[in-house]
Amino acid sequence: MGASRLSEFELIALLTRNLPLHPGVVLGVGDDCAILDTGGNTLLLATCDSLVEGVHFTFQTYSPEQIGQRAVAINISDIAAMGGEPRFALISLILPLRQSQELIERVYAGLLQEAEQFAIAIVGGNISGAGKSEQLVIDITLLGSIERGNALMRSGARVGDILFVTGSLGDSAAGLYTILHPGNAYPSEERDALRSVHRIPRPRVREGRILGQLGPETVTAMIDISDGLSGDLQHLCERSNVGARIDTMQLPLSQALRTIASVAGHDPFDWALHGGEDYELLFSVAPGKEDLVFQAVQSATGTSITAIGILCPAEEGMKLVSPVGQEKVLVPRSWDHLKQ
Amino acid sequence: MGASRLSEFELIALLTRNLPLHPGVVLGVGDDCAILDTGGNTLLLATCDSLVEGVHFTFQTYSPEQIGQRAVAINISDIAAMGGEPRFALISLILPLRQSQELIERVYAGLLQEAEQFAIAIVGGNISGAGKSEQLVIDITLLGSIERGNALMRSGARVGDILFVTGSLGDSAAGLYTILHPGNAYPSEERDALRSVHRIPRPRVREGRILGQLGPETVTAMIDISDGLSGDLQHLCERSNVGARIDTMQLPLSQALRTIASVAGHDPFDWALHGGEDYELLFSVAPGKEDLVFQAVQSATGTSITAIGILCPAEEGMKLVSPVGQEKVLVPRSWDHLKQ
Repeated sequence: MGASRLSEFELIALLTRNLPLHPGVVLGVGDDCAILDTGGNTLLLATCDSLVEGVHFTFQTYSPEQIGQRAVAINISDIAAMGGEPRFALISLILPLRQSQELIERVYAGLLQEAEQFAIAIVGGNISGAGKSEQLVIDITLLGSIERGNALMRSGARVGDILFVTGSLGDSAAGLYTILHPGNAYPSEERDALRSVHRIPRPRVREGRILGQLGPETVTAMIDISDGLSGDLQHLCERSNVGARIDTMQLPLSQALRTIASVAGHDPFDWALHGGEDYELLFSVAPGKEDLVFQAVQSATGTSITAIGILCPAEEGMKLVSPVGQEKVLVPRSWDHLKQ
Repeated sequence: MGASRLSEFELIALLTRNLPLHPGVVLGVGDDCAILDTGGNTLLLATCDSLVEGVHFTFQTYSPEQIGQRAVAINISDIAAMGGEPRFALISLILPLRQSQELIERVYAGLLQEAEQFAIAIVGGNISGAGKSEQLVIDITLLGSIERGNALMRSGARVGDILFVTGSLGDSAAGLYTILHPGNAYPSEERDALRSVHRIPRPRVREGRILGQLGPETVTAMIDISDGLSGDLQHLCERSNVGARIDTMQLPLSQALRTIASVAGHDPFDWALHGGEDYELLFSVAPGKEDLVFQAVQSATGTSITAIGILCPAEEGMKLVSPVGQEKVLVPRSWDHLKQ
C-alpha cells in the first residue's frame, strides 16, 4: 500500500501514535508548535515546516525572494498561532545541481528579509546536494518563546465559545486562482492585491501576542489557517472535542475577493471556507469576553477580527448556516499534498 | 555559475556572511550547534542535518530502520561535540509517492529507536509529498542542553594544546568500502564489524558530556568527525586560528581496519585521515592536563582516547609526520555532496 493512501495528517497520527513521554515536554506533536520547558521564565516553542519545489511552489509563479520569504512566514504563523514570539531559525536547504548560485542567493535574501522583519536570528542550518532530484527543498525549524501560562493551544475550546478570525478569508486562494487562470479580464488593482496576499503571507504575530496575553480564560484556543478554514476548524474541534456552527453571512470577505469572484464566476464563500494559505488566526473566545477581545486587538494592531460562529457539542459536528438560515454539514476540504 | 562550483562550506559562508546579531544568540552559524540563551540554568543547543536518498544513502545498502537511526545519530553527534545532552527532536520527512507505508513506518521505527536510546523526545515535525522527486529526505532538528560555561566550541584551541580523538579512526570508511567493493575475500568477522560501525554510528554523548564538564581550561575545543579527520581538523584549526601537526603513527587504527586494508590493498592511514562518518570526537587539551582527561573519560566510559598530535601556529598550517619522522603538508580531503 502506498503512503499516498493516507493523508498527511493520518500518516503523522500513525507514526506518532506511541511516542513516549519525556520530561520538559509541555506539549508534543499535534498542535501548531511543541511547547518545551527549558527552565527559563518563558517556555520554548518549536515548529518546522518545509516548502518543496513542484509541490508547494514553482519558480514560474513566485520570485526566488518570495519563495524564501514564504518559507519563513509559514513557520512564523505557527508561532503566532500559539501566541508566541518568533526568535531563532535553522534553515535546511536541499539544492539541485542545476540551480544557479545567484538564484540560491536570492532565495536566501528573501529568507533573511522575512527573518529580519520579525527580529528572528538565523542560527544554524544545513546545505545538502539533491542528487538526481530537480527540486529545491527549504525546510525550516523555527523556535519561539511564550510566557508561562499564555500559550494558546488547539485543545482549550469549550461549548458555547465564540469563534473568531483575524482579517479576511479566501484572499490567498483567490489570488492563486488568478495566477493559475490568467485568461480572465480581472481588474488589475484587485487582482494584484490578492496575488500579493497569496505570494507573501503576513503572519499575525502581533495579534497572536495580544490574544495570548489576554489569558486562557478569555481566549480559549487558537490555530492558524494554513489548510483552509474548514480543515483547520476541524483540527481545532477534534483537539477540543467540540463541534462548530459557522454562519456563512459572517465570513469576512474582502471587496477585492468579491470582485474577482464575480469576474471569475467562482463562489466567493468556497474560497473563504476551503481556500488554504490565508495564515489568519482562528480562535475561540469565552462568552461575554467578545468586547474585551475586540478592543484589545483592534486598539493595538488595527486588525479587524470577526465572529463567525459558535462552538457546540462534538456530536453535532461541523455545520454551516446558509444566508437564508438553513443548516448543512460543513465538510472539510483541504489540500493534501500526499494525495496529489 | 552553478551552485556546484562552491563547496557546501563555501556556500554556507557566502550566504551567512552578513547575518545580524540578535539577543539570546550565544553562538550562531559556524559550529556543530548554535548556542541559545533561553533564560534557564542551562543553555539551549540547536543543530539540523539531513539525509537525502541517493546522496547520503540508498535502500540497497541500508535497512529502512538503519536509515532512520543514522538520521538521528548524526544530529546527536553534533550535540555531543559541544559537550551537550540531546533533548528534543523535530522530524521533517519528504516522501516520494512510490514509497510504501510499510517502508516509512520502518524508517520511523529506526528514528524512534535511536531517539529512545538517548532519551530524546520527538516533539514535532512535518510530512510533505516529494512531487516528482523519487528521493526520500529526512531532515532533523535536534535541540539539546548544556550547562552554562561548559560548551566546547571549535574556536577555543590554543597553540601547544594536545589533539585527542575518541575511539578509532577510519572504521566507517573501511566498512563502506567493503559494501561498495563486495568482491574481495574479506574475513567475515572484521568485515561485519566495520560495516556495523558504518551503518549505525554511535555518537559519543557520554564522552562529550564528561569532556564538557572538565571545563574549558582543560578541554579547549571540540568537533565531531563527520567529514573525516583532515576536513574536521581544518574546521577546528580555522575557527581557533591555529595549525596542527599530526603524528601518523599515533592514529588509532582498529585491528579490523588493518586486516581489511591488507585484504583490500588499501592504505589504512588514508581511511583514518580522510574517511568520513566516524562520528568520533576530536578535541584539544591544555598541556599538562592529558592525564586528567585520560582518567576522566576512561574511568567513566571505558572509551579509549588517543593523543594524535599538537597544535602549532596558524602559519605552519596542517602537517603530517610520517612513520619515519618526515613532515609533509596534510591536505584536507573530505567529501562534498554539492560537487558530486
